[in-house]
Amino acid sequence: MCGVAGIFGHPEAANLVYLMLYALQHRGQESAGIVSANSSTGKMKEHKAMGLVRDVFDERIIGDLRGSNLAIGHVRYSTTGESSSKNMQPILAENFKGPIAVAHNGNIVNATELRHKLEGDGSIFQTSSDSEVILHLIARSKEAKLIDRVQEAIGQIRGAFSLLILTNNHLIAVRDPFGFRDLVLGKLDGTFIIASETCALDLIGAQYIREIEPGEILVINKDGERLIKPFDKPDHFSFCVFELIYFMRPDSFAFGRSVDGFRKMLGRELAKEDIKEADFVCPVPDSSNQAALGYAHESGIAFDLGIIRNHYVGRTFIEPSEKIRHFGVKIKLNPVRQLLNDKKIVVVDDSIVRATTSQKIVEILKNAGAQEVHFRSSCPRIINCCYYGIDIPVKDDLIASRCSDAEICKQIDAATLKYQTLEGLRRAVGEDEDDYCYACLGGSEYPVPIPEELQKIGKIL
Amino acid sequence: MCGVAGIFGHPEAANLVYLMLYALQHRGQESAGIVSANSSTGKMKEHKAMGLVRDVFDERIIGDLRGSNLAIGHVRYSTTGESSSKNMQPILAENFKGPIAVAHNGNIVNATELRHKLEGDGSIFQTSSDSEVILHLIARSKEAKLIDRVQEAIGQIRGAFSLLILTNNHLIAVRDPFGFRDLVLGKLDGTFIIASETCALDLIGAQYIREIEPGEILVINKDGERLIKPFDKPDHFSFCVFELIYFMRPDSFAFGRSVDGFRKMLGRELAKEDIKEADFVCPVPDSSNQAALGYAHESGIAFDLGIIRNHYVGRTFIEPSEKIRHFGVKIKLNPVRQLLNDKKIVVVDDSIVRATTSQKIVEILKNAGAQEVHFRSSCPRIINCCYYGIDIPVKDDLIASRCSDAEICKQIDAATLKYQTLEGLRRAVGEDEDDYCYACLGGSEYPVPIPEELQKIGKIL
Amino acid sequence: MCGVAGIFGHPEAANLVYLMLYALQHRGQESAGIVSANSSTGKMKEHKAMGLVRDVFDERIIGDLRGSNLAIGHVRYSTTGESSSKNMQPILAENFKGPIAVAHNGNIVNATELRHKLEGDGSIFQTSSDSEVILHLIARSKEAKLIDRVQEAIGQIRGAFSLLILTNNHLIAVRDPFGFRDLVLGKLDGTFIIASETCALDLIGAQYIREIEPGEILVINKDGERLIKPFDKPDHFSFCVFELIYFMRPDSFAFGRSVDGFRKMLGRELAKEDIKEADFVCPVPDSSNQAALGYAHESGIAFDLGIIRNHYVGRTFIEPSEKIRHFGVKIKLNPVRQLLNDKKIVVVDDSIVRATTSQKIVEILKNAGAQEVHFRSSCPRIINCCYYGIDIPVKDDLIASRCSDAEICKQIDAATLKYQTLEGLRRAVGEDEDDYCYACLGGSEYPVPIPEELQKIGKIL
Amino acid sequence: MCGVAGIFGHPEAANLVYLMLYALQHRGQESAGIVSANSSTGKMKEHKAMGLVRDVFDERIIGDLRGSNLAIGHVRYSTTGESSSKNMQPILAENFKGPIAVAHNGNIVNATELRHKLEGDGSIFQTSSDSEVILHLIARSKEAKLIDRVQEAIGQIRGAFSLLILTNNHLIAVRDPFGFRDLVLGKLDGTFIIASETCALDLIGAQYIREIEPGEILVINKDGERLIKPFDKPDHFSFCVFELIYFMRPDSFAFGRSVDGFRKMLGRELAKEDIKEADFVCPVPDSSNQAALGYAHESGIAFDLGIIRNHYVGRTFIEPSEKIRHFGVKIKLNPVRQLLNDKKIVVVDDSIVRATTSQKIVEILKNAGAQEVHFRSSCPRIINCCYYGIDIPVKDDLIASRCSDAEICKQIDAATLKYQTLEGLRRAVGEDEDDYCYACLGGSEYPVPIPEELQKIGKIL
Repeated sequence: MCGVAGIFGHPEAANLVYLMLYALQHRGQESAGIVSANSSTGKMKEHKAMGLVRDVFDERIIGDLRGSNLAIGHVRYSTTGESSSKNMQPILAENFKGPIAVAHNGNIVNATELRHKLEGDGSIFQTSSDSEVILHLIARSKEAKLIDRVQEAIGQIRGAFSLLILTNNHLIAVRDPFGFRDLVLGKLDGTFIIASETCALDLIGAQYIREIEPGEILVINKDGERLIKPFDKPDHFSFCVFELIYFMRPDSFAFGRSVDGFRKMLGRELAKEDIKEADFVCPVPDSSNQAALGYAHESGIAFDLGIIRNHYVGRTFIEPSEKIRHFGVKIKLNPVRQLLNDKKIVVVDDSIVRATTSQKIVEILKNAGAQEVHFRSSCPRIINCCYYGIDIPVKDDLIASRCSDAEICKQIDAATLKYQTLEGLRRAVGEDEDDYCYACLGGSEYPVPIPEELQKIGKIL
Repeated sequence: MCGVAGIFGHPEAANLVYLMLYALQHRGQESAGIVSANSSTGKMKEHKAMGLVRDVFDERIIGDLRGSNLAIGHVRYSTTGESSSKNMQPILAENFKGPIAVAHNGNIVNATELRHKLEGDGSIFQTSSDSEVILHLIARSKEAKLIDRVQEAIGQIRGAFSLLILTNNHLIAVRDPFGFRDLVLGKLDGTFIIASETCALDLIGAQYIREIEPGEILVINKDGERLIKPFDKPDHFSFCVFELIYFMRPDSFAFGRSVDGFRKMLGRELAKEDIKEADFVCPVPDSSNQAALGYAHESGIAFDLGIIRNHYVGRTFIEPSEKIRHFGVKIKLNPVRQLLNDKKIVVVDDSIVRATTSQKIVEILKNAGAQEVHFRSSCPRIINCCYYGIDIPVKDDLIASRCSDAEICKQIDAATLKYQTLEGLRRAVGEDEDDYCYACLGGSEYPVPIPEELQKIGKIL
Repeated sequence: MCGVAGIFGHPEAANLVYLMLYALQHRGQESAGIVSANSSTGKMKEHKAMGLVRDVFDERIIGDLRGSNLAIGHVRYSTTGESSSKNMQPILAENFKGPIAVAHNGNIVNATELRHKLEGDGSIFQTSSDSEVILHLIARSKEAKLIDRVQEAIGQIRGAFSLLILTNNHLIAVRDPFGFRDLVLGKLDGTFIIASETCALDLIGAQYIREIEPGEILVINKDGERLIKPFDKPDHFSFCVFELIYFMRPDSFAFGRSVDGFRKMLGRELAKEDIKEADFVCPVPDSSNQAALGYAHESGIAFDLGIIRNHYVGRTFIEPSEKIRHFGVKIKLNPVRQLLNDKKIVVVDDSIVRATTSQKIVEILKNAGAQEVHFRSSCPRIINCCYYGIDIPVKDDLIASRCSDAEICKQIDAATLKYQTLEGLRRAVGEDEDDYCYACLGGSEYPVPIPEELQKIGKIL
Repeated sequence: MCGVAGIFGHPEAANLVYLMLYALQHRGQESAGIVSANSSTGKMKEHKAMGLVRDVFDERIIGDLRGSNLAIGHVRYSTTGESSSKNMQPILAENFKGPIAVAHNGNIVNATELRHKLEGDGSIFQTSSDSEVILHLIARSKEAKLIDRVQEAIGQIRGAFSLLILTNNHLIAVRDPFGFRDLVLGKLDGTFIIASETCALDLIGAQYIREIEPGEILVINKDGERLIKPFDKPDHFSFCVFELIYFMRPDSFAFGRSVDGFRKMLGRELAKEDIKEADFVCPVPDSSNQAALGYAHESGIAFDLGIIRNHYVGRTFIEPSEKIRHFGVKIKLNPVRQLLNDKKIVVVDDSIVRATTSQKIVEILKNAGAQEVHFRSSCPRIINCCYYGIDIPVKDDLIASRCSDAEICKQIDAATLKYQTLEGLRRAVGEDEDDYCYACLGGSEYPVPIPEELQKIGKIL
């Protein structure tokens, strides 16, 4: 779970990438970085740091990156592994053939195997990130042309990868053959823009052109763009359905559909054959707003905002040592007491992972006076981990992998609990339902085979 | 526009005030501070800094403030005056009679006059804040008892003040006779809590008791609480209606009513005799969500989220030097293109001040494909400045003070524009409608006379 | 022990004061600050922070202070009291009569008494520094003219004070009637410069004019300078002899004499009737270099550098938890092993306070192979504390107040130990010997009476 | 010009290395770093940052490094190349065979050639430092044993290198066959210590054992130490004479001699057949103190301290914009006016590079009243650059490479100027005079051939 953005040939390249990173911030809050290049001088510059885009960049830093006409950027979400400044992206390597940088969204499942081989051959790694492997494979290639080196490198990696590669005169976009993560192409003032989500294009006023297709390598240089499709096409694609359900911004247009519209469909599916009478349908803001609206529309129950989200709270806050009634969720989600009092409500959340948050939400609502709380999850039961880049805990921590709905309902102390069904989800997806990956939901196989050692750990290294 | 919170007699006093400041953060983002006291040792400690609560305090700082059983805190909104670290609150003064601290929400209209007199008598000021005047008046009093010194000091100030005063064995709450700003009393584990809004009580699980009444001085010490009402009661109170319309958090219960409910009433009033057919009613998140819901309910038009707010954007961001199509509002408010396309929508915003934001919102929506944008303001036309602590610009900058509705509608390029009427507002307020101040809306006189020099400037110094 | 510097009427005022603070850094390393004023606009600016001049100021800060033609600066040595950012100087107070700032070197013995009186009359203090009292006394004065207010204020304080007072059009220098601390007047490009030591004048190329005389108030404004001598002249002055012995820089010219020359005289006096044969005389660099040279010249013994000082060590360093052979002094003073081996040496140090450092020096030298270490102190036995601004510990911590020379010699494990005699010191001072204060050496009375409460504590508050 | 220190098998390893870096700080002030290893867990940790040892490490950081029993450290002097945080040392590389770190003092003359080859083979470099080449060569080796991999790597590099290599169970010291830079072995509490200079051993109370010999690879692990000498012994060694003249600390014992004693010999040599009458000999503190003492002893002229060094000045300070009489040197070197007035003095400096500093010193002394200033350089004329790690400017910037003594004397405005002769230097060195490198002084060939491209540039890349 990361976000990438790139631009080729614009005098404000670094500044525009910086703005796009704001639009992609929901995809990763741990670190942010930009590498820019000046195609005349051949110079590349970088800046990256731990923290949010607003804290990582300032006037002086953006000023330093200016004067470049090429740039790529990255926001990083720390998955289960190390949260370390070493793993910030983009990763830039200097080389007498010229500098090269990479920004990666996804997860390479054979990274450990490739890394061992490279280290055995004498390569030195500076990070524990799977993304660095790509740079080494490019550097190791004996091919004369950059594009051939990239192609040889990409041919060796397996898994989910939506990549941007930058040299001082090329911007290359790569999307794996299964298409796990989206990558979109846009245009602004005649220059090409590439980003993880369309909301980044919208922000800078760029026009949406098309998706980078699964299995596509798009090479952009001063002579224009060139498309390569070196991979065998799989039987079907494996778009990550969880991106649509939870991760993307509702104003994005992804995998050929409106995220906002999709989530409302999820809400409608949930509402079918469900409660028709309640005081109101309440979202857990902001991530389930759309599903809750869909539920309300379908059921005819009123929509209302029974919970207010406090957006000023940072990653951490200091609890009183007596741990006065478990803060955790409470400081971020605040109930509207007068609205909830004595009410029967349907709460729609996007998903249930460990159920600890769900439990606190129910507690908050009931403490604020709610009489009945009916809990609904717009996502089906999550029962498997993800090896392709979504930060889902190991199986044992997934409540749905070990408890029945009734048990979970009891644990979170709700009046009733209902999950989206796999069928409902597939109906919401519609006709290209087989082009999605449902592995974490038990709805499909893992499309790219998982090395045994990863299977044992049950998560990404 | 500031927030205050205090607690008397709890072993986690400083930590609880810190958490309450999170709940009050919407009332001021410029600086935050806490002064704590240990009633056994008589020691007082302080920490304050520019920035948000999450940035001002860390584990070590809260640790330093621990071991105290009394504390007050403050979040500051910089009004038109200086934004300076000198003006952070609470203000603490050491004195051989014992240290004393004050945290102030409001604005003292005769501060300049009092300051000149005090300086003339040899007092030295460390800040340019009107709040420091209060400390000097207390220090100057010849009365023997603290409470008499406070009473003498308070008797000299005019304007809006909801104050907390802390010594090493007293917590004193003061609210001006007109009651401009709210101040509420709660209880937790048998100890008294005071805060600007009930949402702060809710957060720490404190029970709401009652408002500190207009004109009340509540003195809390180890012997219990004692109430003084030294002021003449005015004919009617002057609760700030703008707090309800815009400033407070919707989950607060203020001036005896639910803020959420009040805002829905505003929406309903707006919808009466207005458009009945449109594709949907759209709020400008998050401040007008409730009014938009009220409008939707009354009009029967669907409610939908056509705009997504990006909460990751800080105070400033760096625009490209070519100022690519005016960022300003755009980076924070993102349209949901697929939802808006070809639609007729009613946008409900909380208020219109300069109309520059309104104009950009309309532009954003239309660029995203909206066919018709009908703009509604849940607040009546703002035509006068505020001298009691709300940061409203000088009259000339208030568009409604110099343009007709038709002119404003044209400027913001909306299909139609409609403001809340003063009558609608009064209906929403209900039976105690005369106990509110509507001066900025031209709906009432300024209840406390404004010194001529302030009238000339047309704003708070 | 602090340093002050000021300048009136130079376009580079703040920058020159900043440079002078570098030359005065040895007088105080805890905090540094500058207040500058522009006599045209009347604006005053300040910057102060904990730390060394090199860390407190940077290009941007000096840039902010530029555009001023008046400035004063201060470096602070934290005496026994609090080391706190609240006590940084200069102290600036805003006032409708105009801003005023003060920078103080010395100690006011009746500060507590004055402060209690001022607080009783309603003044609020922001610091725990005795220097703030001066500002309050000036503010409290009912006199119309600044100079009369200053004179009234100064008339009430007792003790050691070499002050600079700055308004937006005046620079005022004040030295107490006893003249404890030096204050010198210089000229650069036709403008007046005042500083604690002549080395500050030398650094910026200013010409030395004369000392500010004991009991003098020198008022400088655009009409020139004016000298007031409002105090009764005491029978004799009380220049601080310890400043000459230890505290000042050897390249300064102070109390009418060369510090370098005086210290060599101290060395010569020590050498009289002392050892004539040894391998070499060794200073404890850098503070006793001159005394050691004097000793060497008088005795005919060679001078050599058996100890190297490491100037890279900061205030603190982290010792191994096993405290491998007591670091303390060791990390700063490094013996030259090949030079010391098997040698008989005379070590000349500037003074002996607690004797812990002396003990470590002897240990270091002997561990490095020295056969005989003869320890000499260029300062007589220190047996009393100082109430006038020199940071000498309480009497009980002064080894010479409770041990004989023989006992101290045994404790520091030297072959022999010899102190300067009071007679030797007086001979080094020469004809104006009665114009010095020797109170800490038991060589004179305390010239300004010490309040009983201070006498009890045995140090400055 | 860097410093290295290492320790094997001590529970306080990281803390002791940290203290040794203080003793080596004069060898590099740009950055400092430590890598520590725990031989039980196999874990390695690192911390490095730009700045002085006192600023780079704090209690928490040293605490983090604790629990390790192996450690190496490095202080870096930025030579002509980039001053960048990327080039901080030690350099640590993680590898599935185990982590490995290197700290390097010296300069590898064939680094560029090796790097091009390695990059051509697909290695990725993270720094622009020549030292990283060593790590890559080790990583590339196909040998099974660490020591064989190190030996294969070292066999490929040419130039000056005194290296420490650390794994989680080995500490390896390497010194090039010519022995350019010193590296000494000591023992503390039964554990081995290695450092660039003996002053680091002295500081922590370690016993000096011997030098790591030129061409020696010393491998220390839990089974003890093992010495390898894989290189052909050259006809003679090439110890850097400039280390003795200028760079080392006077209390070090290096290349088998006392640095203090050597510098006094240089002073004595200078004094032979030179002025016998002057008021005093004056060093430029602190680097020429010993040479000046030697001169004074030989000539019979008195030694005195006419210049005081201000150690509080950092790397930069802000000059007034009018550049009041050229600060540069002035702020650090302060003349003792009363001592210099009307005097005839011999100034002994350690060396003359560009002569700009020399010129300012003469100016300072004369402005302070000196009548005659005779300038002496303890180092012979520097006419060539150094390719082995000493930061000497390109030939054109070396004044002695293009001007006669008379011309230089005129430029610095001295009464007379005299350089050490090559013969004098060789006499001071004594019997092993042929085991030194005098290339920068034109006194010998460059012992290791310099690649043509470096010769063209005339300096290290």
